[in-house]
Amino acid sequence: MPQSRATIKDVAAAAGVSITTVSHALSAHKAARVAPRTRDRVRAVAADLGYEADALARTMRTQRSQSVGFISDEIATTPFAGHLVHGAQDALRARASVLLVATTEYHEDVERQAIKALQDRRVDGMLYAAMYHRIVVVPEALRGSPLVVVNARTAEPDTSWVVPDEVRGGWDAADVLLAAGHRRIAMINNVDDIPARDGREQGFRARCAEAGLPAADVVVEHAAAVAEGGYEASIRVLRGRSRPTGLFCFNDRMVMGAYRAAAELGLSIPVDLSVVGFDDLELISEGLYPGVTTLALPHYEMGVWAVEQLYAQIDAPAGMSMPVRTAELRCAVIQRASVTSPPPP
Amino acid sequence: MPQSRATIKDVAAAAGVSITTVSHALSAHKAARVAPRTRDRVRAVAADLGYEADALARTMRTQRSQSVGFISDEIATTPFAGHLVHGAQDALRARASVLLVATTEYHEDVERQAIKALQDRRVDGMLYAAMYHRIVVVPEALRGSPLVVVNARTAEPDTSWVVPDEVRGGWDAADVLLAAGHRRIAMINNVDDIPARDGREQGFRARCAEAGLPAADVVVEHAAAVAEGGYEASIRVLRGRSRPTGLFCFNDRMVMGAYRAAAELGLSIPVDLSVVGFDDLELISEGLYPGVTTLALPHYEMGVWAVEQLYAQIDAPAGMSMPVRTAELRCAVIQRASVTSPPPP
Repeated sequence: MPQSRATIKDVAAAAGVSITTVSHALSAHKAARVAPRTRDRVRAVAADLGYEADALARTMRTQRSQSVGFISDEIATTPFAGHLVHGAQDALRARASVLLVATTEYHEDVERQAIKALQDRRVDGMLYAAMYHRIVVVPEALRGSPLVVVNARTAEPDTSWVVPDEVRGGWDAADVLLAAGHRRIAMINNVDDIPARDGREQGFRARCAEAGLPAADVVVEHAAAVAEGGYEASIRVLRGRSRPTGLFCFNDRMVMGAYRAAAELGLSIPVDLSVVGFDDLELISEGLYPGVTTLALPHYEMGVWAVEQLYAQIDAPAGMSMPVRTAELRCAVIQRASVTSPPPP
Repeated sequence: MPQSRATIKDVAAAAGVSITTVSHALSAHKAARVAPRTRDRVRAVAADLGYEADALARTMRTQRSQSVGFISDEIATTPFAGHLVHGAQDALRARASVLLVATTEYHEDVERQAIKALQDRRVDGMLYAAMYHRIVVVPEALRGSPLVVVNARTAEPDTSWVVPDEVRGGWDAADVLLAAGHRRIAMINNVDDIPARDGREQGFRARCAEAGLPAADVVVEHAAAVAEGGYEASIRVLRGRSRPTGLFCFNDRMVMGAYRAAAELGLSIPVDLSVVGFDDLELISEGLYPGVTTLALPHYEMGVWAVEQLYAQIDAPAGMSMPVRTAELRCAVIQRASVTSPPPP
């Protein structure tokens, strides 16, 4: 039998297994479903018969479901989810594929059910998304198949993930204030122990140090990352001994509180106080007066990046290990009207 | 051949068509896929052979894909989408079904592609959702199969839809102000020609009339439904000859502007001015100080309702027409701190 004529059926018959088993055994990302001894036998038979991996790849391409699962911990309570979904969908559309969305509301049993429902529909890969940047443990059921973790890090070495570059974001926020001429600047930070809190503060402090500000002069206050927390921390900072002229808030919700504190203290934004936010929640950043200069989270871009990396795995040649990549995407500075040069001393 | 033994194969053979055609011809919601003459022939043959619709219904039940398509005009730019999706998913979970989400960003070609992608996956039914309450034309490709239009009305008589009860919402907003003792009240309304604008104003005016307020005393100003528009319209109203003590804003974004206008004019909320919003965008309604008394859009409830009605169609016995229902769901008043009794004259 000439080499080019060997089919997957021939391999299955010669190895004494089903066509599905051959397909799995020769697949980069489904081999784990086959017992190692069976897998090795199938691969040996395929090599003997000259069965081409390329032919299998072509077969598999047509067997694709043209769908990707999107498992998200929540979707209802944040306007961010939509941007992730939007980015992923735009990238999928070019591949004539659709996104199947399931949310878990942080319940493990719901997550198991959602993963099973998506796997039953033979999705080509999965996006596992968090609504705020955190560290996740990838569910066992998702391992070994094409997967990208979105807006979260994971300790598993073989898993691709993408998050916002928090450190660079904090650096850029300080830079906006320093570039406008501020030397007395403060940060109102979140109390929650999450990567965004530590990353943004680290970058903020690093940029201040580079500008030659003494570390003791860089004030950082912590509070709950909502408007009320922003108000309380801002009151503390603005009533302090050496009132800052520039304020960086952990997020736009805290900016709402900072605006209220400034108004109560008779400080005009930006003339008496410049403010930089984070998140670019447009309801707030465009709704407040003056509009808030802030950093936009790269949700859309993370959605696109995740789909690209997912397809690098899906398209990986059979027998090759799947490519693993991680990325921290930059948050863009969105200039509005809340920053100007400091008032004369 | 005894009556109970006739199978779908027998009907197909006797009618000279495929099993799929028999299935479609005898189905309540797929009959449109078969030419009328073929459908009638198949139905006559099925009746002759005593083929039971019940048996077909059972077959179809097991053939279900346990998935529902969700076609939405946008999802990225609004925090509402998530609540609709959340409600629909909770209702589907009880049926071990999943939601397949596609967004169209208002592009007709993208919509066609999304509908085809979902139909190719043989979804059991479709939810066709709008991100703001409007009037839609149902795409031709969706007609004749199980379908519920969500957060939109449609003129097609055979289509189920669900929207917020805007008139009742406007009524309840006026009621909150009247119940607190206000007699000089005004509305800041949207300029856009959408059902929410007209419905909320109609209900607002009706409740004021019922309370005996002369129509000429009920001030309604229009502006763009964002913070800046709310600010401008509020300045006009609050600087008017007879300053109102109670203000109803079309939405919470406009409330942001009303708060700014009140602060500029030295009016304290709620002591000098009571304010009622709409939408319950928590970033605003919880973030502003004082918290905003507002009406919550029933997005979660519409998602649940839509799935229930969709399954009433999916479960309709073969040969019966699908049930058509429409509903306007009530918006709940969310009490916060922006309303109190009016100041003494």
